[in-house]
Amino acid sequence: MYANNHPALVGSLSSSDPSVKLINFSPGPTSLPKAVEDEIAASFKKPGLTSLALSHRSPEFLNILDHTTASIRRIMDIPDDYEVLFTHGGGHGQFAAVPLNLCHDKSDVATYIVNGTWTERACDEAQRFCTVHTIDGRDPAGGYTTFPELIEEEIDPKSKFIYLCSNETVNGIENHRLPKLPKSRRHIPLVIDASSDFTTKPIDWQGEGVGVLFACASKNIGHPGVTLTIVRRDLLGEDKASPLCPGVFNYTTNLEADNLWNTPSTFNIEVIGYLMAWLEHQGGVAENERRSIAKSRILYDVIDNSGGFYGTPVQDKALRSRMNIPFNIKGGDENVTDEFLIQSWNEGMVGLRTLTPFGVGEYLRASLYNCITEENAAKLADFMQRFASRNLA
Amino acid sequence: MYANNHPALVGSLSSSDPSVKLINFSPGPTSLPKAVEDEIAASFKKPGLTSLALSHRSPEFLNILDHTTASIRRIMDIPDDYEVLFTHGGGHGQFAAVPLNLCHDKSDVATYIVNGTWTERACDEAQRFCTVHTIDGRDPAGGYTTFPELIEEEIDPKSKFIYLCSNETVNGIENHRLPKLPKSRRHIPLVIDASSDFTTKPIDWQGEGVGVLFACASKNIGHPGVTLTIVRRDLLGEDKASPLCPGVFNYTTNLEADNLWNTPSTFNIEVIGYLMAWLEHQGGVAENERRSIAKSRILYDVIDNSGGFYGTPVQDKALRSRMNIPFNIKGGDENVTDEFLIQSWNEGMVGLRTLTPFGVGEYLRASLYNCITEENAAKLADFMQRFASRNLA
Repeated sequence: MYANNHPALVGSLSSSDPSVKLINFSPGPTSLPKAVEDEIAASFKKPGLTSLALSHRSPEFLNILDHTTASIRRIMDIPDDYEVLFTHGGGHGQFAAVPLNLCHDKSDVATYIVNGTWTERACDEAQRFCTVHTIDGRDPAGGYTTFPELIEEEIDPKSKFIYLCSNETVNGIENHRLPKLPKSRRHIPLVIDASSDFTTKPIDWQGEGVGVLFACASKNIGHPGVTLTIVRRDLLGEDKASPLCPGVFNYTTNLEADNLWNTPSTFNIEVIGYLMAWLEHQGGVAENERRSIAKSRILYDVIDNSGGFYGTPVQDKALRSRMNIPFNIKGGDENVTDEFLIQSWNEGMVGLRTLTPFGVGEYLRASLYNCITEENAAKLADFMQRFASRNLA
Repeated sequence: MYANNHPALVGSLSSSDPSVKLINFSPGPTSLPKAVEDEIAASFKKPGLTSLALSHRSPEFLNILDHTTASIRRIMDIPDDYEVLFTHGGGHGQFAAVPLNLCHDKSDVATYIVNGTWTERACDEAQRFCTVHTIDGRDPAGGYTTFPELIEEEIDPKSKFIYLCSNETVNGIENHRLPKLPKSRRHIPLVIDASSDFTTKPIDWQGEGVGVLFACASKNIGHPGVTLTIVRRDLLGEDKASPLCPGVFNYTTNLEADNLWNTPSTFNIEVIGYLMAWLEHQGGVAENERRSIAKSRILYDVIDNSGGFYGTPVQDKALRSRMNIPFNIKGGDENVTDEFLIQSWNEGMVGLRTLTPFGVGEYLRASLYNCITEENAAKLADFMQRFASRNLA
């Protein structure tokens, strides 16, 4: 029906009409809240040097670093026995860094809860550096639509850590609160990949036994080039890490150098600072969680009330992602899906299909990070209803 | 004489007078040429999404990536049998990535020419991953002011690579052209840390046997958060790298995924593209080398003609860095040095002292990257002459 190279069908994030206001539903990298984007633009007009030009050892940048760190601690209520690191290499860097820091050698065991694309990838990477035990989260049909029960017998008590991804962006599964470990396994630190849900809900750091939590910046808190890694202090120590851990990945090395062991991503860190200031001004994590619930509910409601016109893979509402809503149209009908993409794109709603290699297949995805307002989500919901009405008529 | 916390003495990069035009002599991160900074600022005013908000899989970012890669190839005259990668973790990341990619296990030998702070650090990091042979570049007094002769007997013919840093920023030593290896060792690929001199002189890629060249962005070509790594294709191959090489550092993995194995630093890459376009417009590498020679000569002339008022550690003019000029004042007199820093800072010349942990000691440093014009260098030279006259009178 349409040429395969229509911009809407190949993931174009621009518009042929510059007057159209774009809403970026991309799974990330994505936009930042408008107020933050305005602040970044304004920073280039101020007198003096921008943070693009600042030496990481200048008092001006150290001030940005301190200020950003303090905001993150305050907003995410991070206890004093946790350290905040700005790390290199994105989430994939942490897939290696976590076992390299927490396992001294390959015989050390780590338990991975695999329930989606990103835990699969983390697991593949970890196998180079430690002995990986997996808890398989596949449903009986072989897909990832559930979160596995955590059974004592399936968790080696000697595990150096238990790894999970609190929001699987591709599969649309989220732990709205961190799962409880069986009592006899609560001594094992949790490692959380919170790349796509950080700042959208509270974290009970000590209560849930969080050992390490990391979040790449490019979903909710900034743009690509820096990853926030928060580590409980008792897990640090040069003697604990593998001697094969590269210095840039070594938590202790970087902490001892106050995040300046090598040049940090200065501007990228400043942007996180802007986002945190915005978040605090909006009402912090509590208000942000309220918004995330509201934004996602309005879309799931359209899907659930569409009489099957729209479908979403995760049926358990307690596990449905508030961040990334995968949905198909008429069971994956290609022509109708293309039509949907083109019409929504014409109205400025971009990023609903990304050409990833991760086989999202028939599913489109609406991602509702901090850049998406309740009004934006309502606009998509409204479009989806109109589109369904037209196509059911 | 002055409070130790005077902004000029603690490396401040701002001015108390916003009307003063700043010239950033910082060793990096540092400014970009004004035209490039203006282009970045303008990019935030265009309609549509900025690259901060672009999915790395969108056609808009793929266009930026292709365009930037093509510019780098054209400007640096990179032969077809080399691949261009945008890597994570800065120069320090490459200190680990190089041996992890070129040495299969710890028994593999690599030869490091150590003639300054950065090769020392690269060497320390490499020792985790391979058997390091060093060629010691210390002068008889134990300092780094020379480049060692490369003698056949000192280079194990089985070396997987020979490593050197073509410009040692702290010590002020530069290879204006890559050194020739002894004939019987020319089969060994050179690995070049060109972090601080990339784009300022031509590279004879095949003639000099370059195997890998890397350059962190934050000196001459961009801002921190991305590192350019250029690899000769015959060195690639999953079977060649260490099985312990993290995926983000694996050249082959990243190349096979067209630089999208994980999320690249999108905006940081776009900025490199702006810089390359500027450079090409200015006349490319040949014109840039002419400028680098002129900018550094005017400053070395002031030092050499100051009758000992100014001193610089490297006496061999063929090895003096055009990028970073370390200089002391009255043999390192603390009061006069503080006075120099404060007066130059008052005139907007910032970044001459950075509080690094690398013990530059009594030396200040003028760094002359792409942001520094011939006029800027002349202004510092003029100040240095005036300051000397006043203090010699």
